Amino acid sequence: MQTAPRSAAPTTLSDAELRDLDAWWRAANYLSVGQIYLMGNPLLRKPLRPEHIKPRLLGHWGTTPGLNFVYAHLNRAITARDLNMIYVMGPGHGGPGPVAASWLEGTYSDIYPDVSRDEAGMERLFTQFSFPGGIPSHVAPETPGSIHEGGELGYALSHAYGAAFDNPDLVVAAVVGDGEAETGALATSWHSTKFVDPRRDGAVLPILHLNGYKIANPTVLARIDHDELDWLLRGYGHDPIVVEGADPDDMHRRFADALDRALNRISEIQHQARESGRSDRPAWPMIVLRSPKGWTGPAQVDGLPVEGTWRSHQVPFANARNDDDHRDILEKWLRSYRPEELFDEDGAPAAQIRDLHPRGTRRMSANPHANGGPLVRDLALPDFRDYAVPVGSPGSESAESTRVLGAFLRDIMRGNMSTFRMFAPDENNSNRLGTVLEATARTWNAEILPGDERLAPDGRVMEILSEHTCQGWLEGYLLTGRHGLFSCYEAFIHIVDSMFNQHAKWLRTTNDIQWRRPIPSLNYLLTSHVWRQDHNGFSHQDPGFIDHVVNKKADVIRVYLPPDANTLLSVADHCLRSRQYVNVIVAGKQPELQYLDMDDAIVHCTKGIGIWEWAGTDRGVEPDVVLGCAGDVPTMETLAAVEILLEWFPDLKIRVVNVVDLMRLQDDREHPHGLSGTDFDALFTTDKPVIFAYHGYPWLIHRLTYRRTNHDNFHVRGYKEEGTTTTPFDMCVMNQIDRFNLAKDVIDRVARIQPVAAHAREHLKNKLIEHGQYIRAHGEDLPEIADWHWQGIDSR
Amino acid sequence: MQTAPRSAAPTTLSDAELRDLDAWWRAANYLSVGQIYLMGNPLLRKPLRPEHIKPRLLGHWGTTPGLNFVYAHLNRAITARDLNMIYVMGPGHGGPGPVAASWLEGTYSDIYPDVSRDEAGMERLFTQFSFPGGIPSHVAPETPGSIHEGGELGYALSHAYGAAFDNPDLVVAAVVGDGEAETGALATSWHSTKFVDPRRDGAVLPILHLNGYKIANPTVLARIDHDELDWLLRGYGHDPIVVEGADPDDMHRRFADALDRALNRISEIQHQARESGRSDRPAWPMIVLRSPKGWTGPAQVDGLPVEGTWRSHQVPFANARNDDDHRDILEKWLRSYRPEELFDEDGAPAAQIRDLHPRGTRRMSANPHANGGPLVRDLALPDFRDYAVPVGSPGSESAESTRVLGAFLRDIMRGNMSTFRMFAPDENNSNRLGTVLEATARTWNAEILPGDERLAPDGRVMEILSEHTCQGWLEGYLLTGRHGLFSCYEAFIHIVDSMFNQHAKWLRTTNDIQWRRPIPSLNYLLTSHVWRQDHNGFSHQDPGFIDHVVNKKADVIRVYLPPDANTLLSVADHCLRSRQYVNVIVAGKQPELQYLDMDDAIVHCTKGIGIWEWAGTDRGVEPDVVLGCAGDVPTMETLAAVEILLEWFPDLKIRVVNVVDLMRLQDDREHPHGLSGTDFDALFTTDKPVIFAYHGYPWLIHRLTYRRTNHDNFHVRGYKEEGTTTTPFDMCVMNQIDRFNLAKDVIDRVARIQPVAAHAREHLKNKLIEHGQYIRAHGEDLPEIADWHWQGIDSR
Repeated sequence: MQTAPRSAAPTTLSDAELRDLDAWWRAANYLSVGQIYLMGNPLLRKPLRPEHIKPRLLGHWGTTPGLNFVYAHLNRAITARDLNMIYVMGPGHGGPGPVAASWLEGTYSDIYPDVSRDEAGMERLFTQFSFPGGIPSHVAPETPGSIHEGGELGYALSHAYGAAFDNPDLVVAAVVGDGEAETGALATSWHSTKFVDPRRDGAVLPILHLNGYKIANPTVLARIDHDELDWLLRGYGHDPIVVEGADPDDMHRRFADALDRALNRISEIQHQARESGRSDRPAWPMIVLRSPKGWTGPAQVDGLPVEGTWRSHQVPFANARNDDDHRDILEKWLRSYRPEELFDEDGAPAAQIRDLHPRGTRRMSANPHANGGPLVRDLALPDFRDYAVPVGSPGSESAESTRVLGAFLRDIMRGNMSTFRMFAPDENNSNRLGTVLEATARTWNAEILPGDERLAPDGRVMEILSEHTCQGWLEGYLLTGRHGLFSCYEAFIHIVDSMFNQHAKWLRTTNDIQWRRPIPSLNYLLTSHVWRQDHNGFSHQDPGFIDHVVNKKADVIRVYLPPDANTLLSVADHCLRSRQYVNVIVAGKQPELQYLDMDDAIVHCTKGIGIWEWAGTDRGVEPDVVLGCAGDVPTMETLAAVEILLEWFPDLKIRVVNVVDLMRLQDDREHPHGLSGTDFDALFTTDKPVIFAYHGYPWLIHRLTYRRTNHDNFHVRGYKEEGTTTTPFDMCVMNQIDRFNLAKDVIDRVARIQPVAAHAREHLKNKLIEHGQYIRAHGEDLPEIADWHWQGIDSR
Repeated sequence: MQTAPRSAAPTTLSDAELRDLDAWWRAANYLSVGQIYLMGNPLLRKPLRPEHIKPRLLGHWGTTPGLNFVYAHLNRAITARDLNMIYVMGPGHGGPGPVAASWLEGTYSDIYPDVSRDEAGMERLFTQFSFPGGIPSHVAPETPGSIHEGGELGYALSHAYGAAFDNPDLVVAAVVGDGEAETGALATSWHSTKFVDPRRDGAVLPILHLNGYKIANPTVLARIDHDELDWLLRGYGHDPIVVEGADPDDMHRRFADALDRALNRISEIQHQARESGRSDRPAWPMIVLRSPKGWTGPAQVDGLPVEGTWRSHQVPFANARNDDDHRDILEKWLRSYRPEELFDEDGAPAAQIRDLHPRGTRRMSANPHANGGPLVRDLALPDFRDYAVPVGSPGSESAESTRVLGAFLRDIMRGNMSTFRMFAPDENNSNRLGTVLEATARTWNAEILPGDERLAPDGRVMEILSEHTCQGWLEGYLLTGRHGLFSCYEAFIHIVDSMFNQHAKWLRTTNDIQWRRPIPSLNYLLTSHVWRQDHNGFSHQDPGFIDHVVNKKADVIRVYLPPDANTLLSVADHCLRSRQYVNVIVAGKQPELQYLDMDDAIVHCTKGIGIWEWAGTDRGVEPDVVLGCAGDVPTMETLAAVEILLEWFPDLKIRVVNVVDLMRLQDDREHPHGLSGTDFDALFTTDKPVIFAYHGYPWLIHRLTYRRTNHDNFHVRGYKEEGTTTTPFDMCVMNQIDRFNLAKDVIDRVARIQPVAAHAREHLKNKLIEHGQYIRAHGEDLPEIADWHWQGIDSR
């Protein structure tokens, strides 16, 4: 850990420095405009003709010169201070900027040799941008130096903090666009200042870039009083330094000075904390950059102002290929950067430019933290079998599964005190994971009062009541090569549906990018699930995140529904070892029956799906009916249904199939975990009725199995948006996934027993009526249910 | 519109007023504790015994006394000023509070006569709370006076502003919990201050309630420096008044004073704006209330502090039924409110309490704005047929469908200038709805600069780059009985997945609540859809919101995929007339072919699904194959595939079925719009191959049709997460929903033509190869595609 203050840089820019900075900026801007417009004549060594211009112009100019301006200045600071710095660009629409910068720094050509640092390479650089078969117009996984997909807005700060945690020497410069600043995710992520430890963590330097406009509207933060903005940023815990203007030379001098002040202050804060051993929360410096949208672009086009307005947001004028006037404006604009000074005879950056950027891994486009894969070290994992719940016979004991997991997580935490964190929206304890607090505190660098429990600046359990911030922090942490777990109420994980989308797409894309190595998986533990919302009721019931997740590519998503504690331990161990997936684990936190001892759990989880012979009666014979189940509550109800059925039909051949790894249900041609047709048929038969009790919305099981031989005989029960404040068992009844209804489903579908089923059917009907009456009168579980659980199971 | 300032209330509370306020507060608190704990002996006229206490204790005490405190004070102000006020409770977990208040005000018993204002009614009031068959523990649709479901956190302010828009006389008091203040949705919704017009709109009075703790953690805003908090709130555009303490008498005096100051200031602001005709943005007043969590609850239980800590969050102690000490604490706690002074012999509120609340519709629990249904007036809608695009023959013309809709929306806006608003995250113009700006400006009450276009404080197109805020505003606007439309990029509507859940559940629940009348539907127009992300690419592709929506109850959700402009007009007209649904309309904004003239469009949309005879060749005969399509791009590709097929197989009997109303595909037993089995079979046959080109993820079509006779012959094409930056046509090819692949699918499945299909198959394969080469070389649509479109269609 670096404890000496970094050497103070000069606070005044020399004329030579200014000239260099400006030349680098002009080069990056030239290359950015070139990417948006050109497909030939990249160095303008000929007059610009229609065929040099792309037939379809797509891209965003508006934010790009600002991003380039900051890049140039950060480079100066990195060189002067030997900084370890990465750059998160919130306004990721400015994709041409970082692509231009990494080409200037040489990284781009190192990674993509066909985009060489010469005229041919520059032409390729221009042509590929936002072009079929080329690169996206946003900062994307393909962009060296980026951990931040620039498609959706709002995650810049939470990603930046995620990168800075546990990286004490890293400074993350994070540009926040004034558009994205209006998003909810961004607006609350400013409060990350209360969750960073100046001793242990790196620093984030936010740069709020006010260029004043979104697509078609001004931005809120650019149009409130300057005082209000200053208050707001101080309220977030920052000490803002404002740089405002449009004149390049003036702005260079002032921004360089502001950056030096901010970096000096960060050094002081860290030095002081690390020397004193105290982590008092400072007012962290930040910079407000007010510069024109589309800065250095054409002032006017067709008589309307462009620079400094929303008209520069995308392509400032669209007819450069076919309209001579527009083409003339474009040529003048490009020549205004004086490319002849910037690039040499071959089209490579001129020597003067080449020498301006930092060297090796100090280049932001080559900083290892911006490509977490190669940095990943395996977690030191204790043996999960040591945390097993003893299970004498299935269903004879009860445990809170997530609490059992908590002990495993505590020891994972102990063994990985700088590479593993847990994240939750104030739900860590509610989700029964509190044991982890024996190993570490909750991260907290705001006021701590006597009586507070387990709060500390260097805590590693990160709790803020913002699913967005939890997700963003974790993503930043994973993308820089570390590990984590996000536990959340099942219904409210939908808050981050869109963030999940972006991360899953990032993983999908990076699977095809050789130089990006696999990163640790994003692990969700969803608990407080739909079946146990006893008082929270209807508003807290939604098991649909699984549906959302399985819409993404099969090669990046995994879904697990461990039915008890030992299977949960096994699944969690597997997920924490995995790379490059999104793993969704759904598990209950309430006391629930335990079925499998650890050896059986491991076997079951390894297969992901299997016949529970001890629970069924189909010893070696084709069953009359298959009862499938996935999820803890459906499994319990299924086993109880078996009991009921056997009381009435002792010779019924029932097969119980439990599913832990949901994607096993899918065809092996559609998901890597999918079962072959033969294996599937061996479990579910080709023609027997299947009654499947599923944790979530029932149609997902149909979706996963619709190509299977026996699909027409699948009858699926699941959550169908019924029930609110009631008992757990009544929730099952209302959604017809309870033992009585499942038993009825079997009776209705097994032809062999129907002649003798009248009494049983009547009995079940009465049980349901009785239940309804009892519930309305007493509001508790049916009294016999407690006794009924699994008696007899262990005797078979 | 009220323009005179409301009469100033006394700023000092008299002793009598204080005594009354406190008595009312004690009564509300007593009734709240009773709801959480008791099921008998409601007036404590006997010693408390185990059987009086619920067997399972569920609920949240922590926030409730604060909500009651504010309620009492708002009541005083309403009476003193004859205020028209509703109350939005962000910390909606405090459900017992508003239930208690509405029982005290008489509203509860008016609506639910069995919960009468006497001892028996009080016992029912207590027992039903968070009890099977009873009411949820949160503020819920069942709660009179609420427009704000308290299950999920974060939407208090956006709902409050939504209610205040266009209600100039309304004051919405909105308690923001310090927990929910950490959510993204809430954090950005503070900026609503820049979108409210003091002349035309009502006012929102935010009351930030800092009780310091969430479930298990302190809250960020309670633990930053008081200066920082003050800056933050000023930065949001407020002038905060702080009331801090724990002593009830002192707090009553100070809160009453703060409330008077805030309401006086609101009156001044509105008076000034309305007199002067100027809408300058003021610093709106707000109140910060710092009071102990679980205020007036037991100080300690089992030796641990409870009042003022997170331990009061839910039920402060759990063993009151079985533990004598706990029961004793409960009894002392309940008696501390002196129930004998608060309730009369019969158990009704004592006269002194009964007289304290406002009268009639001034009661917040009976304010009409909190029950928007009865307030709804139909929109004055122009005839949508007047906006029709002339369509001579199908596919002969092109139009931007959403731009056509824009003209209709402009005139709807003109005719409903106080009951209709449009909402978009900075995408109104991008979505081609800019025509509406001829009728109104964009709402903007921050700085306006020369050169700005169509910004005004009284604009009615609400654009902020926060999907959360757009959704929350619209919800608040609808829940108070007005109308609106939310247009959004298709992929990023997932940002509000969880908000949609809550609203859909609200609608579902209120369908069963007689006294809540239907409110206008929540209308989404999703555009910039998955098939036209030419440069935004992979990150902007996600058609899964439809999947998310159809997981909710069939009686509240509708999904429409109009294939062209006239069908879009017809669908939009239908949606804007509807009540109590969430309508999702997906439509393109790019120039696209037009198929149906207005008469045909109306017929088609009325049916929702139908055979396009002009496009097929199955005149009155059973077809060889059915081509189904839903969505604009899939429809275009399907029609092109028909052209290709007929070139090769002129006698092929092709049926084209287009789907506008997606839920028509489902069984009529599952969705009210569903087709009967007979009708479905009449369209899709019982045994012919069906090639279905669908806008979104293909499995949804399987899900909707899996019970249909012919389902096994359905072959569905849709988006499968392929493609990024490329041409629109190449996007289709990469997902195999293009004309060539669809034609191949037909050839592969129609046995009759296979003997003569070798050449056609070869031709299609070559076309795809050619396309791939062309795309890589030129990056444009296949050159022949433009010519190819629909030539010949009009001749049949």
